Amino acid sequence: MNVLVVGSIAFDTIETPFEKVQQTLGGSAIYFSTACSFFSKVNVVAVVGEDFKMENLEFLKNKGVDFKGIKQEKGKTFRWHGKYHNNFNERDDLETKLNVFENFNPVIPDEYKKCRFLFLANIHPELQLDVLNQIEKPEFVALDTIKYYIDNNRDDLIKVLKNVNAVFLNDSEIRNLTGEHNLITAAIKTIELGPEVIIIKKGEHGALLISRDLFFSVPGYPVEEIKDPTGAGDSFAGGFMGYISKVKNTDNNSLKRAVVYGNILGSFCVEKIGVKKLKEINFTDIKERFRKFREYVSFN
Amino acid sequence: MNVLVVGSIAFDTIETPFEKVQQTLGGSAIYFSTACSFFSKVNVVAVVGEDFKMENLEFLKNKGVDFKGIKQEKGKTFRWHGKYHNNFNERDDLETKLNVFENFNPVIPDEYKKCRFLFLANIHPELQLDVLNQIEKPEFVALDTIKYYIDNNRDDLIKVLKNVNAVFLNDSEIRNLTGEHNLITAAIKTIELGPEVIIIKKGEHGALLISRDLFFSVPGYPVEEIKDPTGAGDSFAGGFMGYISKVKNTDNNSLKRAVVYGNILGSFCVEKIGVKKLKEINFTDIKERFRKFREYVSFN
Repeated sequence: MNVLVVGSIAFDTIETPFEKVQQTLGGSAIYFSTACSFFSKVNVVAVVGEDFKMENLEFLKNKGVDFKGIKQEKGKTFRWHGKYHNNFNERDDLETKLNVFENFNPVIPDEYKKCRFLFLANIHPELQLDVLNQIEKPEFVALDTIKYYIDNNRDDLIKVLKNVNAVFLNDSEIRNLTGEHNLITAAIKTIELGPEVIIIKKGEHGALLISRDLFFSVPGYPVEEIKDPTGAGDSFAGGFMGYISKVKNTDNNSLKRAVVYGNILGSFCVEKIGVKKLKEINFTDIKERFRKFREYVSFN
Repeated sequence: MNVLVVGSIAFDTIETPFEKVQQTLGGSAIYFSTACSFFSKVNVVAVVGEDFKMENLEFLKNKGVDFKGIKQEKGKTFRWHGKYHNNFNERDDLETKLNVFENFNPVIPDEYKKCRFLFLANIHPELQLDVLNQIEKPEFVALDTIKYYIDNNRDDLIKVLKNVNAVFLNDSEIRNLTGEHNLITAAIKTIELGPEVIIIKKGEHGALLISRDLFFSVPGYPVEEIKDPTGAGDSFAGGFMGYISKVKNTDNNSLKRAVVYGNILGSFCVEKIGVKKLKEINFTDIKERFRKFREYVSFN
């Protein structure tokens, strides 16, 4: 079953302690759809500038990603330049040029409007709400957001949260949203805002899924060397949403497996710079890591 | 089967954002043996001062902890005063008076010398080595240490590490010991120093066990509110050592279960100030938490 994602496409310049790449394809919609494509067909709604060559998306088209929802607008594509420091504990955002993304006005093509699984990547909550209003009775909507919108557009965000099934937040974001340091308390407060399913991403420490009747916790998949954390959260969401749309099921066991797949897609993502590693792997690699992960965490 | 622990007994003054207790019974040997006593008989070697009343240990004696190895020396008992700040991210050590612990010279009573399971709590590595030399062919020796000894007594520590089966370190300690940020690389380097089994404690993020043929990872047990982290590491070690000595087995599955029990004893420890919570629980509570933990981390 298709997954619809509304998010950003960008040219990223990434500096890590190991290397630097310039103007590589990035943005939430790219990481999400690359990860998601291992499980499901993906429909993308995003905006790019005149400088964007559609050939950039060829590898994703070959993976069953559909880009009818991409608009090419006058101006330049979103550009971001970030520099990570030792051990990736800190990042400097050296430059963020929204360009055409600044006036992003997501229009959902008619053929996407019946999508059952929707991922609202981190765009302005007003736009997220606007997208929601264009979709006919989706089955499962998940939302991502960032500190910026939590701080500056809280009222809008609260409105969207009322209307989604799941939210992906990292530990500092959910603390920020709820004012609660304890992640369980924070999750309970977030459930009261609307979403039934709270997924807390803890980076190298794994993830939690909390709902009214499920508590599920996974440690991080052991990665020998983190090369670039950019996009790991969107890759997590891509694996998660891809899996549940593939099995067309959001019962507790499917949600648990979706978290494990999300965790694994995130772990692949960080192993090479940009989207590189996700482009190299295949579904057998993912299944193999799933098998290993089960071994790493299970006991009799 | 009995477990022998050599460590400290102290009077702790603990300040947290919630409360303050003065001169409460603490020290590594106390936390360890309280946790361990749910699984096994424990023999304690430690030193106390003239101000120490043996009635303090009554609750432990009732749990099968044997204190023939305690020496009462002239002078005062070890005193520590710590203050935790918000969210327990930082701690000030306001006062550390070693008192009689400064000249601790652990003498192992003859009847303890045949112990099969030995825990060397964080004392000077020279003393740890001295204890090892007094024990007749132990089956499984585990060691704990702290940053202070890693920084100041590295050579002695390296000597002890050569002669133990397992080492408990937290994430910052093992990074400190090996100079490696990545915990897996750090564990592999530590295995090269001698111990076969490396247990990395990650506080609220759980723990890792790494050996040449086992990788096992557990997230933290979800605690609604941390009240005091003092002693959590020693409680973890107590649960771990208690379990393997109870089952008299250190195969991979036993090591995994031991980590889960360690994790659970640590989670109980932090729920009340000092050793209070560990005194209140019984083995049924531990088994119930083991069952819940399995549910929290397992998937089909």
